[in-house]
Amino acid sequence: MAENKQYYIGVDVGGTSVKLGLFDEEGDLLGKTSVPTPSLACDEGYAAVVGGIEQLMGAVQQPMLFVRGIGLAVPCPVPASGVITMAANIEIDAPALKEALEARCPHALVRYVNDANAAAMGEVWRGSAQGHRSMVMVTIGTGLGGGVVVNGDVIDGAFGAGGEIGHICVNPGEERACGCGLRGCLEQYASASGVVNNYLHVCEQGGVEPVELVGPSDSRSVFDAARAGDEAALAAIDVTMDYLSLGLQIISAVVDPEVYVLGGGASASADMFLDSLREKYAARAFRVSRGTSIEVAELGNDAGIFGAAYVALRAAAREV
Amino acid sequence: MAENKQYYIGVDVGGTSVKLGLFDEEGDLLGKTSVPTPSLACDEGYAAVVGGIEQLMGAVQQPMLFVRGIGLAVPCPVPASGVITMAANIEIDAPALKEALEARCPHALVRYVNDANAAAMGEVWRGSAQGHRSMVMVTIGTGLGGGVVVNGDVIDGAFGAGGEIGHICVNPGEERACGCGLRGCLEQYASASGVVNNYLHVCEQGGVEPVELVGPSDSRSVFDAARAGDEAALAAIDVTMDYLSLGLQIISAVVDPEVYVLGGGASASADMFLDSLREKYAARAFRVSRGTSIEVAELGNDAGIFGAAYVALRAAAREV
Repeated sequence: MAENKQYYIGVDVGGTSVKLGLFDEEGDLLGKTSVPTPSLACDEGYAAVVGGIEQLMGAVQQPMLFVRGIGLAVPCPVPASGVITMAANIEIDAPALKEALEARCPHALVRYVNDANAAAMGEVWRGSAQGHRSMVMVTIGTGLGGGVVVNGDVIDGAFGAGGEIGHICVNPGEERACGCGLRGCLEQYASASGVVNNYLHVCEQGGVEPVELVGPSDSRSVFDAARAGDEAALAAIDVTMDYLSLGLQIISAVVDPEVYVLGGGASASADMFLDSLREKYAARAFRVSRGTSIEVAELGNDAGIFGAAYVALRAAAREV
Repeated sequence: MAENKQYYIGVDVGGTSVKLGLFDEEGDLLGKTSVPTPSLACDEGYAAVVGGIEQLMGAVQQPMLFVRGIGLAVPCPVPASGVITMAANIEIDAPALKEALEARCPHALVRYVNDANAAAMGEVWRGSAQGHRSMVMVTIGTGLGGGVVVNGDVIDGAFGAGGEIGHICVNPGEERACGCGLRGCLEQYASASGVVNNYLHVCEQGGVEPVELVGPSDSRSVFDAARAGDEAALAAIDVTMDYLSLGLQIISAVVDPEVYVLGGGASASADMFLDSLREKYAARAFRVSRGTSIEVAELGNDAGIFGAAYVALRAAAREV
């Protein structure tokens, strides 16, 4: 094996599609494909994933034996043990899928990782956090996800809740429930849906008619309105940054990363909030951590496949 | 070297005394001594620490050459780089002290670690968290300190604020300032001083005369009053546990440890609050993390020397 080139596969299992990427050891993306998400609890489903890998390896004319690692990013908690016990959003028999992949790629290590945690590892490998040993990724989408990387590895958590920063309680007095059932979660104020909620709240309080919104997490329209000078939208973004900076303050007092990386759909509107977030964070952070960098993610939707492959690569490196 | 026994020294630098412990590789404490804290920025100070090590090695009749690691726990931020830039409470020239120790113990790796982080590592090595790969130590004293261990290593933090959980902001609306200058820090409500503050606040609100207190962090008298049935004291402990459980909820949503270990002076009164804390934590934790264990520390004031030695041992093991 040692003289042969080694390849790594990143698989990002989403609700609608399974994305696959082929990488070399340096993190160069050699090929990409995707399949509609099948049930991952039956032979046909396993075959669809294996088929994707065969296609990618075939395109570079390399045998399946040279696959040294396969990382699977999944939208559910993945405890440090790797044993998945709760997968609400997808149908998956994780041990059986792993077995099927190992049968077809006998030299590959197969590892599961939570999808938000995978995105963090992707940004460390080839994105905004390259060269950093520690970072926290903040994924601002419909929900608020996260990934915490320390000493180069992502923190899965004993029960798979490592990096579940959207569910940090920032407002114990909140009466509305978060999607998770708790009250006062950071996600309720600082996700794309949070931006919209904050905006509607400001409009209601000021007796202002809100701009037209496409659904409950259409933060883009709020950012566009702010860009055009809409005062309610600007105020809503200010509230959002109050909460987000509070979240980062809290995270720094626990793991104190070198850098925060902002991803997810809302990060496309970072021009409207990044300066404000940096200022608010610096004003409230614990003294030594005031200078933590806050950057925007670079890999977009590919972060998951990059990170999943990188998790597998790091696991393989440890086994040598 | 390989055939010889290897020894590790844990040094805990406090405001009034420097404690030293001698350990074998298994974590057995072979000897202990202490010296009044000298200035650690001059030859006499370095000599005092070296002298303590000579005394410990002499007592087991082993040469200084067999010292394989020296860990120094210090009451200031220690960034992951090991370069100390801010030491408010002690006088220390960290690079010079390191050099003096290396000169006398030429086979030893010398490592600095924050004292609260050292305590966490001590509890992992030979205390309540033995056998756990991840844990968070919560030290409830005059202030509220902490240490976060993941994958067996403590998180120093990029700027040395890893585990500074006392400065998690849990109440952005607070008007009183914390000792650190911020407002609404967990330490203001959940340290021994926090217990006293909570108690005085309850007494004031209820028009009740407080019991006699010996200073602003005498939580012991409050716990004793509660044990005797004092309602204001019981209410104050309840408020304290509301905040402490909120802190643990937050930490679990970031690093999701297997276990919390409570240390510091107030942990001696855990009989008055442990059940309540466990209940409140389970009620507010993110779903997968509801079962995190909460235990009381075992090593008391020796946690620092144990942990400092263990940090040095782990660093030495990585260098082989």
